[in-house]
Amino acid sequence: MNSSLLEPAMAPPRHATPPQVAFAFAPASVGNVGVGFDLLGHSVAGAGDRAEVRRIDEPVVRIAAIRGCVTELPTDPRANTAGTALLSLREALGLRHGFELTLHKGIALGSGMGGSAASCVAALVAANALLAEPLPREALYAFALDGEAVASGSRHGDNLGSMLLGGLVLATHDRLLRIDVPAAWHCALVHPHVVLETRRARAALAGHYALGEFVAQSSNLALVLAGCWRGDAALVREGLKDVLVEPRRAPLIPHFAKVKQAALDHRALGASISGAGPSVFGWYDNRADAEAASVAMQAAFAEGGLDSDAWVSPVNGPAAALIDSLDVESQP
Amino acid sequence: MNSSLLEPAMAPPRHATPPQVAFAFAPASVGNVGVGFDLLGHSVAGAGDRAEVRRIDEPVVRIAAIRGCVTELPTDPRANTAGTALLSLREALGLRHGFELTLHKGIALGSGMGGSAASCVAALVAANALLAEPLPREALYAFALDGEAVASGSRHGDNLGSMLLGGLVLATHDRLLRIDVPAAWHCALVHPHVVLETRRARAALAGHYALGEFVAQSSNLALVLAGCWRGDAALVREGLKDVLVEPRRAPLIPHFAKVKQAALDHRALGASISGAGPSVFGWYDNRADAEAASVAMQAAFAEGGLDSDAWVSPVNGPAAALIDSLDVESQP
Repeated sequence: MNSSLLEPAMAPPRHATPPQVAFAFAPASVGNVGVGFDLLGHSVAGAGDRAEVRRIDEPVVRIAAIRGCVTELPTDPRANTAGTALLSLREALGLRHGFELTLHKGIALGSGMGGSAASCVAALVAANALLAEPLPREALYAFALDGEAVASGSRHGDNLGSMLLGGLVLATHDRLLRIDVPAAWHCALVHPHVVLETRRARAALAGHYALGEFVAQSSNLALVLAGCWRGDAALVREGLKDVLVEPRRAPLIPHFAKVKQAALDHRALGASISGAGPSVFGWYDNRADAEAASVAMQAAFAEGGLDSDAWVSPVNGPAAALIDSLDVESQP
Repeated sequence: MNSSLLEPAMAPPRHATPPQVAFAFAPASVGNVGVGFDLLGHSVAGAGDRAEVRRIDEPVVRIAAIRGCVTELPTDPRANTAGTALLSLREALGLRHGFELTLHKGIALGSGMGGSAASCVAALVAANALLAEPLPREALYAFALDGEAVASGSRHGDNLGSMLLGGLVLATHDRLLRIDVPAAWHCALVHPHVVLETRRARAALAGHYALGEFVAQSSNLALVLAGCWRGDAALVREGLKDVLVEPRRAPLIPHFAKVKQAALDHRALGASISGAGPSVFGWYDNRADAEAASVAMQAAFAEGGLDSDAWVSPVNGPAAALIDSLDVESQP
């Protein structure tokens, strides 16, 4: 990947004496973005996971604690997404030292907002800052993929890519490509308080597919990409329709049809499931519509008896970043 | 579609008194372009079909003659791709008059070079010139799709779109989007002298597909589109690999692996089957490599005992155009 695609702020600092501890924040993300299953994602301002990584002399990765809104995650590093990502980094670089990781989860488990990816990315960005020669962001991608596979059983980078680089990112099996979109484009993301396990959501996709489904979805993907590259909202509006995955997963999400309709009713460019669900997102060409839609989407979940949280963010959302401490207040 | 995407030369003329007869040429094309099955195509300079369309008083479409390199096509307009396209135009516009069509085929039957599409497009472009108020090019697309369906049993516009607008075109079920590529990018297209019926080539695609195949192919499509939009040959080189359709159709094409390798050996951005085959194409970021590759590809077919024809064309190839007569010399 061309390093000129990285923003200057993301060029890693070089240290004469690397620090012993670093803290990082990784934002939530909308995975798949409807038409880019396992490939396309964008970061979302507001929610995210935080990681503290400490350099230790022992040649191991150790998880000291997991705090925040999710605590029942495995602390065996080989069973933990962030732990696995750090193990992968250590092994690839042949590091003599180890890492001790403390996670502060801000993204709910099984929310479809990229929680496992955010833990991987926050841990890697913090660990990277401890290296004598920190790697560029895109070089962390392979390690993050190793971690993500622990959570979902699949090496997919749609959430990881957008967290590493910020904004809307195409994430293939081995590279990231940032896709600029107009600053005015916003996303409304609503997370109902029900858990949908990623593995269960993936099981809904088992079985066979017809070539015609793929042609229709590819056509939509191409229109969305064209619309993003040209900044043409009308093209995105034509294409932002998931005809492949959404029909198979919608039954797993309570009140999906009503919430999606609420999203569409506010001049959405499109609306669908965020990641594996149950969160639902809509895209808008301005912030006000996204704000109004998020209220309507929450109301639709509430009618069905479900509490929810909502975020409104530029589609061109933030990248993961170093922070000063694990305190919530230090969130960028 | 935004009419500003049409080149000035393609704005249809208005006639005080429409002419009684018109002639048009439609170029050959590379359908699918490897990663855009049924969606992506580009026109090819050199080969093509020509049509003469005459306004007649009877409210019918009549095929007077089919000449050139293919003559065994049906002359019943409802069984003929170009005839069906003209019937569709007549019916949609409620025309009182009819059309008499003479085709001069320059594209071999079952070659994978868009022969049926070229007949549709040439006939429609000529017929359009006979209207008191000729339609813009993209308005002819729906009629051309009706014609194409007669040949292949499927409404796919990958060949039609590139012929109507010229160059590389994304053709969804209801719209065309032209994709500019650098003028230096060239295609080598080699047609071995064997017939591969479109219907047989489509039958090879019957059956079910795995979701993972779609993800891999979508990833490649996105890289190729990104590379075209940015004029970045490296991105195209990463993505221009058909992992979905080529493995299923390659066994139908004699010596495919050797011919593809010959194409790749000349610094190709990628190489695959043109349309339904048996023609094979390669993309290059300069004309000299495409020229050298076309010689090597022909040699690879010749080693297998197959004669072939070859064309080297800008990827940004020509659009269909009005011509002065059916004479081969009047080809643009």
